[in-house]
Amino acid sequence: MNKDMIHEQGEVTDKLREECGVFGIYDLDGQDVASTIYYGLFALQHRGQESCGIAVSDTHGPKGKVSSFKGMGLANEVFNEKTLESLHGDIGVGHVRYSTAGASTRENAQPLVLNYIKGTLGLAHNGNLINALELRKELEYGGAIFQTTIDSEVIAYHIARERVKTKSVEEAVRNAMKKMEGAYSLIVMSPRKLIGARDPYGFKPLCIGRRDNSYILASETCALDTVGAEFVRDVEPGELVVITREGIVSDKSMCLPRKKHARCIFEYIYFARPDSHIDGVSVYASRIKAGRALAKDSPVEADLVVGVPESGNAAALGYSLESGIPYGTAFVKNSYVGRTFIRPKQSSRISSVRVKLNALKEVVAGKRIIMIDDSIVRGTTSGRIVKMLRDAGAAEVHMRVSSPPFLWPCYFGTDVPAREQLLAYNRTVEEICEKIGADSLGYLEIDRLQELTDGLEICRGCFTGTYPMEPPKEDIRGDFEL
Amino acid sequence: MNKDMIHEQGEVTDKLREECGVFGIYDLDGQDVASTIYYGLFALQHRGQESCGIAVSDTHGPKGKVSSFKGMGLANEVFNEKTLESLHGDIGVGHVRYSTAGASTRENAQPLVLNYIKGTLGLAHNGNLINALELRKELEYGGAIFQTTIDSEVIAYHIARERVKTKSVEEAVRNAMKKMEGAYSLIVMSPRKLIGARDPYGFKPLCIGRRDNSYILASETCALDTVGAEFVRDVEPGELVVITREGIVSDKSMCLPRKKHARCIFEYIYFARPDSHIDGVSVYASRIKAGRALAKDSPVEADLVVGVPESGNAAALGYSLESGIPYGTAFVKNSYVGRTFIRPKQSSRISSVRVKLNALKEVVAGKRIIMIDDSIVRGTTSGRIVKMLRDAGAAEVHMRVSSPPFLWPCYFGTDVPAREQLLAYNRTVEEICEKIGADSLGYLEIDRLQELTDGLEICRGCFTGTYPMEPPKEDIRGDFEL
Amino acid sequence: MNKDMIHEQGEVTDKLREECGVFGIYDLDGQDVASTIYYGLFALQHRGQESCGIAVSDTHGPKGKVSSFKGMGLANEVFNEKTLESLHGDIGVGHVRYSTAGASTRENAQPLVLNYIKGTLGLAHNGNLINALELRKELEYGGAIFQTTIDSEVIAYHIARERVKTKSVEEAVRNAMKKMEGAYSLIVMSPRKLIGARDPYGFKPLCIGRRDNSYILASETCALDTVGAEFVRDVEPGELVVITREGIVSDKSMCLPRKKHARCIFEYIYFARPDSHIDGVSVYASRIKAGRALAKDSPVEADLVVGVPESGNAAALGYSLESGIPYGTAFVKNSYVGRTFIRPKQSSRISSVRVKLNALKEVVAGKRIIMIDDSIVRGTTSGRIVKMLRDAGAAEVHMRVSSPPFLWPCYFGTDVPAREQLLAYNRTVEEICEKIGADSLGYLEIDRLQELTDGLEICRGCFTGTYPMEPPKEDIRGDFEL
Amino acid sequence: MNKDMIHEQGEVTDKLREECGVFGIYDLDGQDVASTIYYGLFALQHRGQESCGIAVSDTHGPKGKVSSFKGMGLANEVFNEKTLESLHGDIGVGHVRYSTAGASTRENAQPLVLNYIKGTLGLAHNGNLINALELRKELEYGGAIFQTTIDSEVIAYHIARERVKTKSVEEAVRNAMKKMEGAYSLIVMSPRKLIGARDPYGFKPLCIGRRDNSYILASETCALDTVGAEFVRDVEPGELVVITREGIVSDKSMCLPRKKHARCIFEYIYFARPDSHIDGVSVYASRIKAGRALAKDSPVEADLVVGVPESGNAAALGYSLESGIPYGTAFVKNSYVGRTFIRPKQSSRISSVRVKLNALKEVVAGKRIIMIDDSIVRGTTSGRIVKMLRDAGAAEVHMRVSSPPFLWPCYFGTDVPAREQLLAYNRTVEEICEKIGADSLGYLEIDRLQELTDGLEICRGCFTGTYPMEPPKEDIRGDFEL
Repeated sequence: MNKDMIHEQGEVTDKLREECGVFGIYDLDGQDVASTIYYGLFALQHRGQESCGIAVSDTHGPKGKVSSFKGMGLANEVFNEKTLESLHGDIGVGHVRYSTAGASTRENAQPLVLNYIKGTLGLAHNGNLINALELRKELEYGGAIFQTTIDSEVIAYHIARERVKTKSVEEAVRNAMKKMEGAYSLIVMSPRKLIGARDPYGFKPLCIGRRDNSYILASETCALDTVGAEFVRDVEPGELVVITREGIVSDKSMCLPRKKHARCIFEYIYFARPDSHIDGVSVYASRIKAGRALAKDSPVEADLVVGVPESGNAAALGYSLESGIPYGTAFVKNSYVGRTFIRPKQSSRISSVRVKLNALKEVVAGKRIIMIDDSIVRGTTSGRIVKMLRDAGAAEVHMRVSSPPFLWPCYFGTDVPAREQLLAYNRTVEEICEKIGADSLGYLEIDRLQELTDGLEICRGCFTGTYPMEPPKEDIRGDFEL
Repeated sequence: MNKDMIHEQGEVTDKLREECGVFGIYDLDGQDVASTIYYGLFALQHRGQESCGIAVSDTHGPKGKVSSFKGMGLANEVFNEKTLESLHGDIGVGHVRYSTAGASTRENAQPLVLNYIKGTLGLAHNGNLINALELRKELEYGGAIFQTTIDSEVIAYHIARERVKTKSVEEAVRNAMKKMEGAYSLIVMSPRKLIGARDPYGFKPLCIGRRDNSYILASETCALDTVGAEFVRDVEPGELVVITREGIVSDKSMCLPRKKHARCIFEYIYFARPDSHIDGVSVYASRIKAGRALAKDSPVEADLVVGVPESGNAAALGYSLESGIPYGTAFVKNSYVGRTFIRPKQSSRISSVRVKLNALKEVVAGKRIIMIDDSIVRGTTSGRIVKMLRDAGAAEVHMRVSSPPFLWPCYFGTDVPAREQLLAYNRTVEEICEKIGADSLGYLEIDRLQELTDGLEICRGCFTGTYPMEPPKEDIRGDFEL
Repeated sequence: MNKDMIHEQGEVTDKLREECGVFGIYDLDGQDVASTIYYGLFALQHRGQESCGIAVSDTHGPKGKVSSFKGMGLANEVFNEKTLESLHGDIGVGHVRYSTAGASTRENAQPLVLNYIKGTLGLAHNGNLINALELRKELEYGGAIFQTTIDSEVIAYHIARERVKTKSVEEAVRNAMKKMEGAYSLIVMSPRKLIGARDPYGFKPLCIGRRDNSYILASETCALDTVGAEFVRDVEPGELVVITREGIVSDKSMCLPRKKHARCIFEYIYFARPDSHIDGVSVYASRIKAGRALAKDSPVEADLVVGVPESGNAAALGYSLESGIPYGTAFVKNSYVGRTFIRPKQSSRISSVRVKLNALKEVVAGKRIIMIDDSIVRGTTSGRIVKMLRDAGAAEVHMRVSSPPFLWPCYFGTDVPAREQLLAYNRTVEEICEKIGADSLGYLEIDRLQELTDGLEICRGCFTGTYPMEPPKEDIRGDFEL
Repeated sequence: MNKDMIHEQGEVTDKLREECGVFGIYDLDGQDVASTIYYGLFALQHRGQESCGIAVSDTHGPKGKVSSFKGMGLANEVFNEKTLESLHGDIGVGHVRYSTAGASTRENAQPLVLNYIKGTLGLAHNGNLINALELRKELEYGGAIFQTTIDSEVIAYHIARERVKTKSVEEAVRNAMKKMEGAYSLIVMSPRKLIGARDPYGFKPLCIGRRDNSYILASETCALDTVGAEFVRDVEPGELVVITREGIVSDKSMCLPRKKHARCIFEYIYFARPDSHIDGVSVYASRIKAGRALAKDSPVEADLVVGVPESGNAAALGYSLESGIPYGTAFVKNSYVGRTFIRPKQSSRISSVRVKLNALKEVVAGKRIIMIDDSIVRGTTSGRIVKMLRDAGAAEVHMRVSSPPFLWPCYFGTDVPAREQLLAYNRTVEEICEKIGADSLGYLEIDRLQELTDGLEICRGCFTGTYPMEPPKEDIRGDFEL
């Protein structure tokens, strides 16, 4: 490909990235589940647009007969009628994935499907292990080979090694969990069981649903709504649930005390779909609260509060409700910016932000605008959007950010640029404000975060540099290039 | 394809369809224009998602060397770096198209590119001729052959026949226009000229823009914004503009008196992008006005006003502003529903509306909701959305529609179901309300329409059955199946 | 595409190219014919590998309901189960095409399908009109538009114009034929009739077959064998046959006296499949005769006669039979060289001939070899093959060519390089022999050609520059670039 | 896919299948090797048409940076300019593969690329281990996971486990070879070495070539010819060769005495390309000898000897040379039957053999024909071809087969139908002859096999049921379905 051509992701750029979504289902009536998984992945697509896959197992068939299909792209692009119809099985697991550029390969698509001593396993994983390198090395010293660069393969190996010594697959998963450090929401499919596990800190979400005689595991409750299932409960941090013909069995032996939990706050602020509930807390309500908190802590006289679509809208509404300043729509977003959008090199003078967003002059002209976004990463996009509002005639542009300044790397599954590229790094709020060209700038106070989750414990690592567990000393990425 | 599988369009179904968008450009500095056209089509993508194409001509090259590329799908899907780079030319025309199912073929994709007595022509057309059948027959009796079922081919033929007798291509276009009855916003590219024409009634929009030394013609001003061009003016109803190296020449000899104009009101209500201005009127402002008018004419006591995304949002905001009832967001829309979304037959119990929309329970629960949508066509979707709100706990659901009841066919370029399938056909408002399960229902008063366009004359045919010109006696479609 | 990459055609390069094959069928029992056409095209694939298409019409359905599918590539690549099953109709026409690079576009793929005064027509054409430009101009002066650069469109127009004045489609075809000068074997499908026509000189072949209650028209008899049909007879030069429910009607009013016929001799020498019979003469037998004639006229002492695969093999066998020198196989051909074979630029030292052919050292080493090929065009390949034999240890290499020296352009449908690129142009046989590095070289004597066809009259234009009709003054190509 | 549609392989069906071809290269000058591997795979394409792949490593880059690309289809279909250009590395390995239907998946495509304790490995393997199941089980009991069903993964694991204990990768390969039983010609690429290994019985071929400063390993010498390399020598059965910057080092410690060798005789009879030499013996010469032997042992009075193309031609020539009966060409083969050929269900009356082969009536009619093929498997095709000759007028058809009757399964890498489907199973030669409808039938005498290889030892297992090593008790296939 011509390197002057740049493929950009569909969302307004300059955003953090969640890396995965998982979905599992066991239909005790023995019906095929592939199409339900497809819908589930579709509902979780915002968690990963790079690759996706489905693996199903037929509990009636020969033990360990797994059918799977994976590919690069959206669920809509990867699957068609034929592939979905060819996936026969009443137990299954699906995955959507985003990844950093280097390892964006078909080989790394999930679910991972493998044969081991007891037949087959399917694995789908959301999160990032901080000791994956050590776990890999340990296996390599034992003569293991790796065909991907994903943590799921390391996890699978450890499960397989434990399985040799244990009586059940869930026991093997439990023993493997004891070795795994970091963030993981995991779904494991064995020939007769569907297993869900969540790390003891609860970084990533995982919930349980039910539709008629089917049990479902999913990253977010919005996937349950989409497939017509009812929400049963969240998997607790550290919990292991095993779904069999006999129902659900829970193992909470690895759970930590509640105050050690460390949920990823960006699930609430940005990653999750607003119609999802995570650990009992409405994502939408969290964002409204963030907006209200901003209005309290960073008030400013203005005529209109607007959100940067889509993710800034809820916080903007919260700000409006708290401040009494009217809420408005300042931007039109082009909804046809797909996963990959070509930027031909001929037309360098065409702004990539302009292609995706346009300001509504009649709304903005002459007004003092409060513009809410969920975060500032590199800041380039924010600067362009501020300018777009000014070009449309805004009298003043006050930016408010519904999260604290982003300053440190994340080791638990969020894709973050190098520290030097973070706008907030080594800059005061005033300097940042000047950089983006706004009239004023306010961030969410770090003390407000706890409010957003109704008191549930969260991880503040990316704001404070203090992590719930010791981060790895060397960078954990980039070493496994195949 | 398995007929149990249903491909659905990306938008919430049950909507009217615009059929086309056009974009033309002439770069007097001689630069390649294909990538600018690509961006322009991308900005006009909401006007047609079925097929698209670009044709360019190199004014420096041998007379009549046209390069073109067309295909089924979105601009993003049809074009890639290679195809765009292969299109060399400083004058060009592009097209996006939606069509009824039967004629959805590659052959019918535009622009139409053809050779005739004076070299080559490229044509892109938005609208529908009501005398296309007569014009075809006339040509066929002269021995003409047709390779497509689109009006553009008929238009091209008439231009070619006139060209034999005239001194210039613009004269031929003018003569052809005299024969064409109905709706057309037309861009014609000849080896050295770019020509724009709009029918005397002004059904469909067409505007002129400029970027540096390039002149642009486009269906909507949002395309000018996207490519970084400034708005010059609208092409007037009945006007013919000719862009050459010497600049723009206008021919208004076919213009009608202003009160005979008949703009398509659905451009303002639903088709056009809200950031566009048509004939000087902001589309966004029209929708706000529609909402305000609804609040005045159909008031109801309630706790919250919400829009059915995306197109209902602006009217909802208008209703809120007028009524003082708070505006809110009741729905989350899955933005990954692409152009074609597979519905596997296994999963019939999964609601197709659910897949695309989900209600926010915390917003809706216990509230009396006013829900605004831009129109009701068959009504199936409206009914499902009302039910979704009730399932989410809404105490009451009052539907308001930002257009009058849709009752009659459109002959001028909008895709409408058969009359019997229109929910409003042969039903009172009360009956419709009961059918969709709402607590109350209000439509925009037909007298309010004129307000939306600040007094510009509009076509009310689909509401009243009275059209600005005599409609064809027999149905004008379906006769040309190749 | 990187221009350092060269796509080469699958056959050993440096060959003449036939431009088309046609196939038509009418099943009087009303069965679908698409799959039979598919097989027919497959059997005619050697006549054109660039694009292909099928159009069918349902005589039971609404008049003029034609379904068609066309694409770039082999029949195998263009069609799949779904597309074939979607083509319903009991009357149909198919086409395979090769073309010069410039006009190799999807638009130019055949059959041409069009609407005209009497419904629909499907056309498939093999050959080249020498007055196509004049016919085009004539139509353009009447206001016609052209969407392709193929002669079929010109033919279709003339048929349509005649149809206005005549009582039947066959009359219109006959009148159009009177205007057409040059080579054409033509199949026309109207809603209720299948029509075949062959130009009065008989340049290109066309035969009639029958399978049960189906009538078939095809370029070669091998297509009849493949679909299980029996050969009925050849369409005569100048004959028009009309197949309807009532059977076949023949119109020979345009036939010329036999001695004016001018069959393309390269059909016998190279283009046609050896298992075909053209006008009663076995193609295989022609090639054996050519080899025998070479043995008589260009004898040489040697140990082995070999053919350049595949087309040289039959003549080599003929030479062996006549001379008594043993026939052998000196080359292995890689049968996986597809339609397009990528030549990566990294590996310029890898010979493109080597990739396709390899010499059998144990056959060749120490031997005096007579190597037979069907023609020499540019001569580059011949030179490399001679060298390959020498590298494999051949003591002597004597080349014999089963056609006379190729010296003049063809205006009747064969793709020939510019005259300056023809090796024989302005060179003696001795100079050519030296150029290709052979020990001796012999061409077929021009007087022998008549023997190959058992006395049927042939065209000798490419050898003598004397054509059966006046060639066009200006070059007839390249003027119609769309 | 509609199950009434049958995809058939390109060759005349009813053939045995080789399962793989391998190619490796190390360019000591540091040039990219991907395009040379591509040509090499193209030359080996007859050994496997289902999937192929290339993996390269850059010895100058970071240790273990491997780039690879694999896919389903021919080399021509899988690779394009972009993918080849993206594969940077001066050491590389390639693979072509055919497999039984069940395991025909992208996951199983080779080369296998993996990370292990010492960086990366690339593996390409031709052959079949008879103790693969035991080796797998052994690993599984140690906690290993498997992501494919190919032996290469088992081999890679054992190499990795040995590597933990050894000083060099070649030592690890040697130790792994000691555990591997069965057929393997193996190429292993480590970050700085290219290793070739051949099992001690020499079932499958492997040779060494050189081009300038590059060393090459390939299944057949024809690949050396194609890439312009010279043949150096064969890898000996049981030999391990290690190519590094310092040159080639050989380890023959695992070689067996010559009389224990067991080359696959079908490499000579059918699999290998006739221009290849295996262990010093010309494949073409072997086939000529087989034909001569048939003429001696199964003489019959006849007018013409013909081969079933392509593989029967050489033996037919041999028969002709020995018997003095003229050699001829009775069949024309359609060379456009690709890897997959669609058989639409509409047209069941069209013979699939007819589509691929046609008889030349003028050659056959009235003649007594000896028809030579290389083997009879199920016999369905043979019967149809005999009938085709009779339909073309043959007076008599005498079939001769250039191998003995095929009666037993192969455990060493050839794909064979179940025993009950073998025509020769439980039938006398007379019964077989009657079944295929020939006038007489003769097989190659089993004692003649040794002559074909100039005395080199061969495996006769598929003819006699006596194998060079104990076959596995249970069937070794089908157990590893993922």
